[in-house]
Amino acid sequence: MNAEIIAIGSELLTPYRQDTNSLYLTEKLNQLGVEVIFKTIVGDCHERLTQVATLALSRADIIIFMGGLGPTEDDLTRECVAEALQLEIHRDPQIIIALEERFASRGWKMAANNLKQADVISGATVLPNPNGTAPGQWITGKYDEKERIVLLLPGPPFELKALFDQQCFERLRAKVPRQFIATRVLKITGMGESQVDARVAPIYTRCTDIDTTILAGAGEVQLHLKSRSSSLEAAQQAVDELVVRLEEELGDLVFSDNGDSLEQIVGYYLQMRGATLAAAESCTGGLFSERITSVSGSSRYFLGGAIVYSNELKAALADVPASMIERHGAVSPEVARALAEGIRYRCEATLGVGITGIAGPNGGTPEKPVGLVFHALASSTGTDVVERKWPGDRQRVRRFATQQALNMVRRQLL
Amino acid sequence: MNAEIIAIGSELLTPYRQDTNSLYLTEKLNQLGVEVIFKTIVGDCHERLTQVATLALSRADIIIFMGGLGPTEDDLTRECVAEALQLEIHRDPQIIIALEERFASRGWKMAANNLKQADVISGATVLPNPNGTAPGQWITGKYDEKERIVLLLPGPPFELKALFDQQCFERLRAKVPRQFIATRVLKITGMGESQVDARVAPIYTRCTDIDTTILAGAGEVQLHLKSRSSSLEAAQQAVDELVVRLEEELGDLVFSDNGDSLEQIVGYYLQMRGATLAAAESCTGGLFSERITSVSGSSRYFLGGAIVYSNELKAALADVPASMIERHGAVSPEVARALAEGIRYRCEATLGVGITGIAGPNGGTPEKPVGLVFHALASSTGTDVVERKWPGDRQRVRRFATQQALNMVRRQLL
Repeated sequence: MNAEIIAIGSELLTPYRQDTNSLYLTEKLNQLGVEVIFKTIVGDCHERLTQVATLALSRADIIIFMGGLGPTEDDLTRECVAEALQLEIHRDPQIIIALEERFASRGWKMAANNLKQADVISGATVLPNPNGTAPGQWITGKYDEKERIVLLLPGPPFELKALFDQQCFERLRAKVPRQFIATRVLKITGMGESQVDARVAPIYTRCTDIDTTILAGAGEVQLHLKSRSSSLEAAQQAVDELVVRLEEELGDLVFSDNGDSLEQIVGYYLQMRGATLAAAESCTGGLFSERITSVSGSSRYFLGGAIVYSNELKAALADVPASMIERHGAVSPEVARALAEGIRYRCEATLGVGITGIAGPNGGTPEKPVGLVFHALASSTGTDVVERKWPGDRQRVRRFATQQALNMVRRQLL
Repeated sequence: MNAEIIAIGSELLTPYRQDTNSLYLTEKLNQLGVEVIFKTIVGDCHERLTQVATLALSRADIIIFMGGLGPTEDDLTRECVAEALQLEIHRDPQIIIALEERFASRGWKMAANNLKQADVISGATVLPNPNGTAPGQWITGKYDEKERIVLLLPGPPFELKALFDQQCFERLRAKVPRQFIATRVLKITGMGESQVDARVAPIYTRCTDIDTTILAGAGEVQLHLKSRSSSLEAAQQAVDELVVRLEEELGDLVFSDNGDSLEQIVGYYLQMRGATLAAAESCTGGLFSERITSVSGSSRYFLGGAIVYSNELKAALADVPASMIERHGAVSPEVARALAEGIRYRCEATLGVGITGIAGPNGGTPEKPVGLVFHALASSTGTDVVERKWPGDRQRVRRFATQQALNMVRRQLL
């Protein structure tokens, strides 16, 4: 079966807002073996929305409308979908009572326009919205001789997700052909997309029963694998077997095969080894520490560190000798090493990270161009320094540099 | 005039990838007075893409296709659009020469499949692609008696943007009715969306000739204003007059009226006052410093600081007495104050920021729940401490807290 996802709202046709619900719904639909074949975004316009609904009914098995279920004049989804389905609308007294109770419980009087949210398309199942006033609707039936499933969902992401998970997922599962889908994600760092693809394409292209998608961001390549079968075991086995072969090829370039982020993986390793970490950052300005501490529970292994933008602070907080900065410059392997060793000592950490470089767009010279970064890791066995020239803008250089430093910590703990 | 934007590529129908080009194009089209009325996303499927193209030609004045211009079998845009337009395709020898030169200059031999990129729809103007191999195409003409403008653009954002800016924007301007659009953005922090709206709605709703959109993120509300007129002066004047009235109402809650971010504004003020800044962060784990240093040139006013996750480091790097932490707890107004004062002294900065709190999801208690954050700002005239209970998950709490601290710095320098 296939699906069309329709996002409704004039704000989604401005430069400022974007539909993100469809990514969530696509993941859930894919789990059920349903493929998304179209996504459409349309404004709060009666004629255009009705046209979009009519077209979707002609070309997809499952049609999901998101948004336009509120109480204002702009909220047209119910009436336009009813028109496309050539069905009547009635006002549901049960929903009116629920709405009135919801308002009364907050001590508010319900404005008359809210009654609109009690409008139900004939034959629809009303789907209670745990996080908002507008209920969803579920309609199944024949349209032009073809079986169709139509869903009306609220637009705000936290309303949509809860309602879909609680009210729609199992209902859909009962309607779609029984099919099991297993997915795995391999995450790789320390190698570029084309190099990774050159190594693994000969392996995954032979597995024609498994969908493989390769995605790349700054310093990270992801392989998304998906297998379908009539039993969960068969689907899982197929995808697991491919994972084994890919990991054999890539070795410890793979840092995660279960979706975990690099900062989570580094956290696991640190905890497992009973080790602690501290960082002294110059050009990354706190991004390394921010990534480490974005993981809940990171206080168990991350002690803290210093952001040493000025040369004075490199000395005051991480004990880098002023004479060293004078001789080699603040962006040098010597200073990276001194930062890592200094912060490790100062914080009494198992491992110390030091990062210094030129994030740009200004400050580069022919000898030390924008993108040049030195990454150092100090441990009880010594200090490693890695030099890289990262491409891209300030944001990308900083992201690449923290990815490199995180990966150095990971490899140290392997 | 109006437009439909069509993004092509099966990867855009997965949970992992999203079209972002359309936001950029929408902004540019709006500048020309062109409204986007539909966005459609379709996979690499001949039948569906041709259907989408045919439909778009029937309902929009300008149709922009993005993606599907590469050399592979999956790249179908040229042939499907030609089919929808009922036009022929020919292979352009000029493009073949350019492709061959491009490959030769890199010392590569061109594979035969690349010739596909030389296919041109009859009557199309070829738009050179400064950043890639696939040129764009511009087609104007009557379709079903209606004037249409059709654009074929490459999918990768840096190719699309350069090509659109250099080859399409002025061409479109010459085609659309002469109309001038002026926009302004007011950014507000320190007040929630509904409160801001309650204060400004009585003002902007009276200006029926100006589009006003209100958007809210964690700790920030934005008012987007747009005015159209037959002269740029009239459009600018209308929107400027509304800005004046809104700023009168909101006072210094408005931190920017030209699109600058809060971290940029804080940077301007610091430079203007010849002041320097340092920060000691606990629960925000580096996010405050990361935001400050995301601005190029921030080394002129940001000295650095400390990330003090462990209690030992609160003492070692920011001179917070261990006895104070024992008595009041690490999350307390006293410790926030001591962090701000300690880091200011240690770094010899004009201003010192201290942040301590519970970002969650774990670590909360009935007395000190998740979301509780103390924000302190130390200066030569004393130290302010602000207590807040922020809503949301770990990421939102950390974002709110840094927004609050940035705003405290801004207000100190006003």
